[in-house]
Amino acid sequence: MPASLPDRAAGEPSPQPFTFELQATSGRARAGLFHTPHGPILTPAFAPVGTQATVKAVTPDQLRELGAGLILANAYHLYLRPGDERVAEQGGLHRFMGWGGPILTDSGGFQLFSLADQRTVDDEGVSFRSHLDGSLHRFTPEKAIAVQENLGADITMALDECAEPLDRAYNEQALARTHAWALRCLQAKTRPDQALFAIVQGGIFIDLRLQSAEFLSGLGTPGLAIGGLSVGESKGQMHAVLEALHPALPPDRPRYLMGVGAPEDLVEGVQRGVDLFDSVLPTRMARNDAALTRAGRLNLRNAPYADDERPIDPECGCYACRHFSRAYLRHLIIAHEMLSATLLSIHNLHTLIQLTADLRLAILQGRLAQFVHAFQDQRVQAEVEA
Amino acid sequence: MPASLPDRAAGEPSPQPFTFELQATSGRARAGLFHTPHGPILTPAFAPVGTQATVKAVTPDQLRELGAGLILANAYHLYLRPGDERVAEQGGLHRFMGWGGPILTDSGGFQLFSLADQRTVDDEGVSFRSHLDGSLHRFTPEKAIAVQENLGADITMALDECAEPLDRAYNEQALARTHAWALRCLQAKTRPDQALFAIVQGGIFIDLRLQSAEFLSGLGTPGLAIGGLSVGESKGQMHAVLEALHPALPPDRPRYLMGVGAPEDLVEGVQRGVDLFDSVLPTRMARNDAALTRAGRLNLRNAPYADDERPIDPECGCYACRHFSRAYLRHLIIAHEMLSATLLSIHNLHTLIQLTADLRLAILQGRLAQFVHAFQDQRVQAEVEA
Repeated sequence: MPASLPDRAAGEPSPQPFTFELQATSGRARAGLFHTPHGPILTPAFAPVGTQATVKAVTPDQLRELGAGLILANAYHLYLRPGDERVAEQGGLHRFMGWGGPILTDSGGFQLFSLADQRTVDDEGVSFRSHLDGSLHRFTPEKAIAVQENLGADITMALDECAEPLDRAYNEQALARTHAWALRCLQAKTRPDQALFAIVQGGIFIDLRLQSAEFLSGLGTPGLAIGGLSVGESKGQMHAVLEALHPALPPDRPRYLMGVGAPEDLVEGVQRGVDLFDSVLPTRMARNDAALTRAGRLNLRNAPYADDERPIDPECGCYACRHFSRAYLRHLIIAHEMLSATLLSIHNLHTLIQLTADLRLAILQGRLAQFVHAFQDQRVQAEVEA
Repeated sequence: MPASLPDRAAGEPSPQPFTFELQATSGRARAGLFHTPHGPILTPAFAPVGTQATVKAVTPDQLRELGAGLILANAYHLYLRPGDERVAEQGGLHRFMGWGGPILTDSGGFQLFSLADQRTVDDEGVSFRSHLDGSLHRFTPEKAIAVQENLGADITMALDECAEPLDRAYNEQALARTHAWALRCLQAKTRPDQALFAIVQGGIFIDLRLQSAEFLSGLGTPGLAIGGLSVGESKGQMHAVLEALHPALPPDRPRYLMGVGAPEDLVEGVQRGVDLFDSVLPTRMARNDAALTRAGRLNLRNAPYADDERPIDPECGCYACRHFSRAYLRHLIIAHEMLSATLLSIHNLHTLIQLTADLRLAILQGRLAQFVHAFQDQRVQAEVEA
């Protein structure tokens, strides 16, 4: 269970949106509350990804039962389909997708720079071809904000240039653009009910990361993201960047490590001061027949599971583990039944959401070191048994 | 809401499994309770189909919320994959698929006779090739029972020969076999916690149908099915068969019209004494982007729905209609998101389950004629508007 909210005297007004209450720390690790117009996000938190305004294969009711505190959607995808103006006409993203909790929209920066030869970038913005129909489009910082204001998420992201993390020259050049664009995004922003997060870039280069953190912290956005990691660098390099950034980022604002979501990465990230995570990993793995546990991964397509009457993880309390065996899940996979993607998505999301909730509780209760120790022991044990 | 169960004095034992309480009639229409080891089925009832031990794209929790009183699975499919013995080792179908309510397994007769040139039939049974891998198999009445005893459903079906409904000579020949096989199924049966239903055949030929009803009623099975309809004959021919069978079937046992599930067919069937229905229609339509309402059908892929902020059916109380617009559902369809199949399956199943629950209430309250009149008016009105 997630930790309960702190007591508040009756009649006391809720805090202003976008204030961050730091409730406890343990080393660099932090437990906090980030207030949004759609309720508080208890941190550390893992956010399921709903790229196209749906977390693939699960309903909003199932997400609520999972205790999801924040979900993501993607401005690039929704701009192309069904169109951000259409979403606005339908009452905004919360109403459109039936999710009453906090939502974060990514600006599209990462997607645009993943298009490779389908885009050209200049100081003003990015011209690109739609991955759907090849049609020509252009995103500028101002456009990225306009799209996200139409979508209406609680947290919006600045448009950034995502450079290859090991290329120093490109990172230097991209950083200047990312900083200029963050400023333009802030200037273009009109909705007071949305928090803009700027995105710290700089690849694996500590001096660039520190320069980025200093510049972007100075903009006064209610939160900061760490972009450009988990895209080709080593774990050690990622950890070094997080460790260097910890003292350079304002302690009173949440830190969001973009695109990171393996269990071990959540544990390492929290220990280095990260408050928010997101990743398509749990739902993508689910559609590839794999179950994610704290101890490792199971490919449920494998033949030995055909007669395995245990749940995916006997320690897990998710809907899938409470009701179904590995044998049943394997049957669904082999029989090409959609329910396997739903049940595995529920399980995999539960693994990550529950892990961040447990990390939060350990920080609040001053026993993070013991928790991390037990987590690592469990993984070593599972490797020995495998 | 389904009608509530009748009051029972505290401490009074539950009725024996497989007794049918006829609670009210209205013309030929009946409202009743069929008791099974996994709870009573309130009739008339529509049963969602879970061919491969899953109602496609919905979880058992969602089925429970829909008020499903009975679900189907298929002996032919489960025999081939994952294997009925494997299901038995996993504790039987209820436990395997996480469904604690009543289950009915079809014997596989319909599937075997649909295989056409992949099977040969003789008086002893049917030899066939698997539709999965071409391997050779044989079903006899005894084997069909053994498979269904391994699966462990509450209601099992006799193996029957499904003849083309308009071919008199074939129906005469098939009927003799269907009757002999029903007797052999009854003799082979060993589990007292399963009710075997015999299947009345005879195509569109009233004399054959009456002969079948008389023979099979005499076997004393706790229920009777009506097979071989909705497979090529006209609606008028189907209605004539049902009307002729009404007085020929024992009033104190449930009547199950196999494979029938369009809203108008449920209303017509109930008026002719049918208690149970099943069909893949609602879930198959859902995967083909179509929504089923009492008034008709909507293809939500169509462009005008892109900006339609109404729910599928403003009168409907299902999860999909309470939370999502046609615009959102169309977006999911166009974006190839699995959630569309889940939400449309929920809606389509709700339409049929709620319709049978409303028919039941109308019978119990003595206002079936008015209900049917209003139902038909609604359809005519929708056609006028379309």
